Amino acid sequence: MPINLRIPGPVPLPQEVREALAQDMIDHRGPEFASLFGEVTEGLKYVFQTKHDVLILTASGTGGLEAAIVNLLSPGEKALVVINGFFGERWFEIARAFGVEAIPLRFPWGLGAEPEDVRKALIKAGDCKALLITHNETSTGITNDLEAITKAAYSIENPPLILVDAVSSLGAIDLRPDEWGCDVVVTASQKALMAPPGLSIISVSPRAWEAYEKAKLPRFYWDFRKAKEYALRNQTPFTPALSVLFGLRKSLKLIREEGLAVVFDRHRAVAEFTRQGVKSLGLSLFPDEKWASNTVTAVRIPPAFRTDEIIERLREGYGIVIAGGQGALKGKIIRIAHIGRVTAEEMAQVIAALKELLPCSRS
Amino acid sequence: MPINLRIPGPVPLPQEVREALAQDMIDHRGPEFASLFGEVTEGLKYVFQTKHDVLILTASGTGGLEAAIVNLLSPGEKALVVINGFFGERWFEIARAFGVEAIPLRFPWGLGAEPEDVRKALIKAGDCKALLITHNETSTGITNDLEAITKAAYSIENPPLILVDAVSSLGAIDLRPDEWGCDVVVTASQKALMAPPGLSIISVSPRAWEAYEKAKLPRFYWDFRKAKEYALRNQTPFTPALSVLFGLRKSLKLIREEGLAVVFDRHRAVAEFTRQGVKSLGLSLFPDEKWASNTVTAVRIPPAFRTDEIIERLREGYGIVIAGGQGALKGKIIRIAHIGRVTAEEMAQVIAALKELLPCSRS
Repeated sequence: MPINLRIPGPVPLPQEVREALAQDMIDHRGPEFASLFGEVTEGLKYVFQTKHDVLILTASGTGGLEAAIVNLLSPGEKALVVINGFFGERWFEIARAFGVEAIPLRFPWGLGAEPEDVRKALIKAGDCKALLITHNETSTGITNDLEAITKAAYSIENPPLILVDAVSSLGAIDLRPDEWGCDVVVTASQKALMAPPGLSIISVSPRAWEAYEKAKLPRFYWDFRKAKEYALRNQTPFTPALSVLFGLRKSLKLIREEGLAVVFDRHRAVAEFTRQGVKSLGLSLFPDEKWASNTVTAVRIPPAFRTDEIIERLREGYGIVIAGGQGALKGKIIRIAHIGRVTAEEMAQVIAALKELLPCSRS
Repeated sequence: MPINLRIPGPVPLPQEVREALAQDMIDHRGPEFASLFGEVTEGLKYVFQTKHDVLILTASGTGGLEAAIVNLLSPGEKALVVINGFFGERWFEIARAFGVEAIPLRFPWGLGAEPEDVRKALIKAGDCKALLITHNETSTGITNDLEAITKAAYSIENPPLILVDAVSSLGAIDLRPDEWGCDVVVTASQKALMAPPGLSIISVSPRAWEAYEKAKLPRFYWDFRKAKEYALRNQTPFTPALSVLFGLRKSLKLIREEGLAVVFDRHRAVAEFTRQGVKSLGLSLFPDEKWASNTVTAVRIPPAFRTDEIIERLREGYGIVIAGGQGALKGKIIRIAHIGRVTAEEMAQVIAALKELLPCSRS
């Protein structure tokens, strides 16, 4: 049975990427690596739409978030954390774990953050060193309006550093670090970048580098400066996840060939197709549709059905792998992801299977 | 030209491992992953020769070393660091970066650490919370006598925690965490484990877990408890480097089929073959042969030759990739690694090429 992997990352790998993964090891201090690293970095800057530095760390996306905190902040400094889902909560937890005075700004799960509320909260908190925000919340299936939020943040005196968790958006949903003033944007290799997990990728603005100079949290493995110094000679300070780089070189090439604008449009179209399909079954979206994400669709499941059963039946009977709810949403929603090279046909298969499994869902 | 990759990691991948890498992604929260994770963990315990917990983090080996520090120590606590090479210095730097009072115990590069000196230094320093040691120093081509050193450390009152960097030894050179009382043993996927880089693997003793409870350094991504809690249900807290796990499952199977004792013997034999070959050219080993490593051979290069030229000519003319010296040894030595499934024929090729390149080396 062919597998239709529809979780919000890792995403199915294009055949060309899989083939690249099978390449044998090379010297990570040699000329072949330098050319690989240079090519990947250039491709990443294209997808990041940035002229900022782009650093590559061997870690999951969460490692990249931790790296952002320990490189730019000091214990006791204030950070406003926009929270409207599981990953906003994670930003908050990481900041707190390192002694940052994290101030939560919570919005109901399923809604996007209101820029004006962010502005007010920044002013009320006073002297916030950073604003931590999740661009796309896979836990609730929403995308925050990052452009409007950054604008609101920059409208105050002494605007905070803007640190963005873009793990599930970058390369699928428009994000412009330079234009919008995002100081750090963190993503990972296994989502829209269509490579296996293992690398976290981080853009760092000049303003972030200034903050780096003053930040006092201890760091070694995550050290941005070390990463930048090595990147200047197309190396990494520590042995990187080479196979993932092999895959990433190929997937970045695919993205470039398709063109970023086309990739964004494709994600928008397949997301819209999915939402229409879900609604055609009489099911409702979990989030307010105004904020609905183009990478993952969260669907309310009527209390008459068990989400774990739906998930298991889709997997066992159809080879369709989707995700359930996290935290408070466990048992209440299912999440169907459409990140990467996904087609309307693949989404139609999911809708058709759901239709068979939930015959009464219209009732 | 076929490549003979003879750097001390990443090492060439067995064909079966490369094939496993090309597998498509799976749900890291699903049943297929649970079975993968369980199988890999069991295989790792075999290679680690341990009943301690074995944790898997997505990071390079250095990430694993940092994890050991931040999980077990507190700022201001003393740690004695055995340093007789580049990686001993790295242990020292990591400990210092996190505010540990790191006390260096340096031995000349090329020699192993003297257990009696370690014992005396521990007593002199007094109240050392930890002893940090590098089992095998690829920078100088020596293996420390870890068994004797742990014995010396345990002979004092209130013996320290023993934290071992075994990145370039574990799975190639005998190491018995339980028998010798190594509280944390850190390795990485790309050395004797014959998978691509991307995973750091760490054994944690009951004594280390006690220390964890009291350790005050901040941690999130590296948190051992989180890793253990997830491992109990065959998951990881954060999306792991899946492809590397696919490869590791296969390579661990190969090691198990061959048998660990045979693998150790094979490394010993191929190392001995390499040392004899080097000496037959009139070249001398960098380290005192008493301490010579079975995973990497460091060779003094007479001042008449340029190491960077030798390295480049081997690569360009023979497809042989070796490493130069690090730090103070740059330009003075070359390093030829023999980790993993390496054959005497492959080492003979290196010796033969060196013979052609260094015609006067006997003079």
